[in-house]
Amino acid sequence: MSETLRLEAFSDAVFAIAITLLIIEVPIPEVEGSESLGDALLDQWPSYFAYALSFATIGVMWINHHWLFRDIARTNQNVLILNLLLLLAIAFVPFPTAVLAEYMREDEQLLAATLAYGGTFAVIAILWNALWTYVRTAGLLLPSLSQARIATVTRRNAMGVIYVLALPLALISPWITIGISTGLAVFYLLPTSD
Amino acid sequence: MSETLRLEAFSDAVFAIAITLLIIEVPIPEVEGSESLGDALLDQWPSYFAYALSFATIGVMWINHHWLFRDIARTNQNVLILNLLLLLAIAFVPFPTAVLAEYMREDEQLLAATLAYGGTFAVIAILWNALWTYVRTAGLLLPSLSQARIATVTRRNAMGVIYVLALPLALISPWITIGISTGLAVFYLLPTSD
Amino acid sequence: MSETLRLEAFSDAVFAIAITLLIIEVPIPEVEGSESLGDALLDQWPSYFAYALSFATIGVMWINHHWLFRDIARTNQNVLILNLLLLLAIAFVPFPTAVLAEYMREDEQLLAATLAYGGTFAVIAILWNALWTYVRTAGLLLPSLSQARIATVTRRNAMGVIYVLALPLALISPWITIGISTGLAVFYLLPTSD
Amino acid sequence: MSETLRLEAFSDAVFAIAITLLIIEVPIPEVEGSESLGDALLDQWPSYFAYALSFATIGVMWINHHWLFRDIARTNQNVLILNLLLLLAIAFVPFPTAVLAEYMREDEQLLAATLAYGGTFAVIAILWNALWTYVRTAGLLLPSLSQARIATVTRRNAMGVIYVLALPLALISPWITIGISTGLAVFYLLPTSD
Repeated sequence: MSETLRLEAFSDAVFAIAITLLIIEVPIPEVEGSESLGDALLDQWPSYFAYALSFATIGVMWINHHWLFRDIARTNQNVLILNLLLLLAIAFVPFPTAVLAEYMREDEQLLAATLAYGGTFAVIAILWNALWTYVRTAGLLLPSLSQARIATVTRRNAMGVIYVLALPLALISPWITIGISTGLAVFYLLPTSD
Repeated sequence: MSETLRLEAFSDAVFAIAITLLIIEVPIPEVEGSESLGDALLDQWPSYFAYALSFATIGVMWINHHWLFRDIARTNQNVLILNLLLLLAIAFVPFPTAVLAEYMREDEQLLAATLAYGGTFAVIAILWNALWTYVRTAGLLLPSLSQARIATVTRRNAMGVIYVLALPLALISPWITIGISTGLAVFYLLPTSD
Repeated sequence: MSETLRLEAFSDAVFAIAITLLIIEVPIPEVEGSESLGDALLDQWPSYFAYALSFATIGVMWINHHWLFRDIARTNQNVLILNLLLLLAIAFVPFPTAVLAEYMREDEQLLAATLAYGGTFAVIAILWNALWTYVRTAGLLLPSLSQARIATVTRRNAMGVIYVLALPLALISPWITIGISTGLAVFYLLPTSD
Repeated sequence: MSETLRLEAFSDAVFAIAITLLIIEVPIPEVEGSESLGDALLDQWPSYFAYALSFATIGVMWINHHWLFRDIARTNQNVLILNLLLLLAIAFVPFPTAVLAEYMREDEQLLAATLAYGGTFAVIAILWNALWTYVRTAGLLLPSLSQARIATVTRRNAMGVIYVLALPLALISPWITIGISTGLAVFYLLPTSD
């Protein structure tokens, strides 16, 4: 139990640091002479959008992680490794966020930036489902957990596959992928009935 | 309860990281040849001022957050979301702080920098009052909390509206807004009688 | 005991921050005109490789640190100092990681970059064994710990000497040293039988 | 008590983040053509020295802070404010550290860099003694604390005045001030007899 607690504390710290580091990548605008700082600040709206979207997505992942570890009775080395891989992907998020913010308004580069951004979230979704599937099938969940609750969580996690499906849609238009990522962040923030 | 504890721990981490990241935005002066490093260091006093003001303001917010969660009996998904929005605004502070530090001595740009800075604090004040109002009206406070205490906290929080009112005053002079922000940080640091 | 707990919490925080800061050193590619962002992103694969390898290595160190402090009955000033030196080396990792990523594809510079990178891990391995040896010989381990367990951990820690032995091999080819570091990270992540 | 605990946890986080952020300020050397990365890495030894000295000094402050809060029975708003000021100075350390590293080998700039660096530590020492004096005289220490122990800690803290006295000596030679700072870090790391 204290086992799980320390793993939770370490994971929480990585989530908190990754989410707070996002702001470091928002550049201070450089204006000279008669240029307007106000315009320059408004002009870099993609940075604020990418900041907010990544903040919400990491925040959602933290909340989910929080619930997951409440349902876990014990951990083992495999859980440690899967969790470490998940944290590796979470801690990576500030990088594609900055790439997306930098190239969101350059039409020729938007596709690559979107694939880097959406691809990171797709990897996170896959690792998340891998962790959940392992914990569930290896009998590490609390015995008191109802089958109904497990089924609900499994369904909810499986929706993360949308991050993967949204990737090829970027070939039609990157904005579809960005829109779906935004929609998923909002969806996961909505209260559930259970 | 352990629920509230983990939310507190995560929030504390974001506060601590945001407050400590502020220093990253203070630039190392570059001097060459016969220029004086001492002069260059003194010359960037706006960076130290903005650092100290933002540090104090985030510190005050942390202390308030601390008291708030002592008075909360339980949380729900809405509290999680409102708290996440609040943290999003808190973690944003290093950016307008750096903008203000960079442009504090450029008369044409000071207004925009001040609006970005004061605007961030206004948003924080609004989100803070939204969180408090929700917690209070949704019956999530400790039953043992006296009406007098609730009224005092409500009054004290409501004073955050001054951050909002101070914004348009920047049109007269940005220094009014900066002065009010400084005054509020000092005010909130002063001991209360209850 | 609360003694050990706070030392653990502080160490955990340094591990978590160092591991999450790694991403800061991955540069946002700058492409102009007809250059392709996709190519530029793929082109900096050494940054992703170095990020992943350092993340895994710090992660392994954290897991080991975690087990070590579970086996410790009490600490003293010497443990504090040895642990502080270890953290100093762990927190240093983002720097040689960025150096390796930057120069991995420049044949003339790869040797120096590899020595900086592998040297940091060698120092960590030495400090780690110093801490373990001190704790073991000063009688600070839990009395309930079996001799078999102590011998296993000692053997496992002693394998860290490979980081030191791998350094001169870089003179033959830096890729040997990089390969050994990668192999060790994977080895330490594998489950043990005890 | 939980009061003190959360203040400790928040302070610990700021210490841990400030100490780990130090590495961010160590620049990645840029070498081109026939230049040697090895030479460039060795050439920036002031960065490693300043990193290690600041790491040790913040580490010492953390250990001291740790002992202080073990001796405190309760806190109040004044303790919160004095502690916040202390953290403001601790979190500031990465800045003068980078300034010292950058200008340590430029004879004309070394004095200013040393004053910025030593001055920060002098301020920390003053705030630290202010916090200790307040806690002691306001009766916030544990009643079980012996007068002998209080006298020892007071003496030990008072030695921090050396940071202040070392400042004007920089006018004779900055290396005296840097040497004294190094000596103090080592002194405070040595075990005490009580």
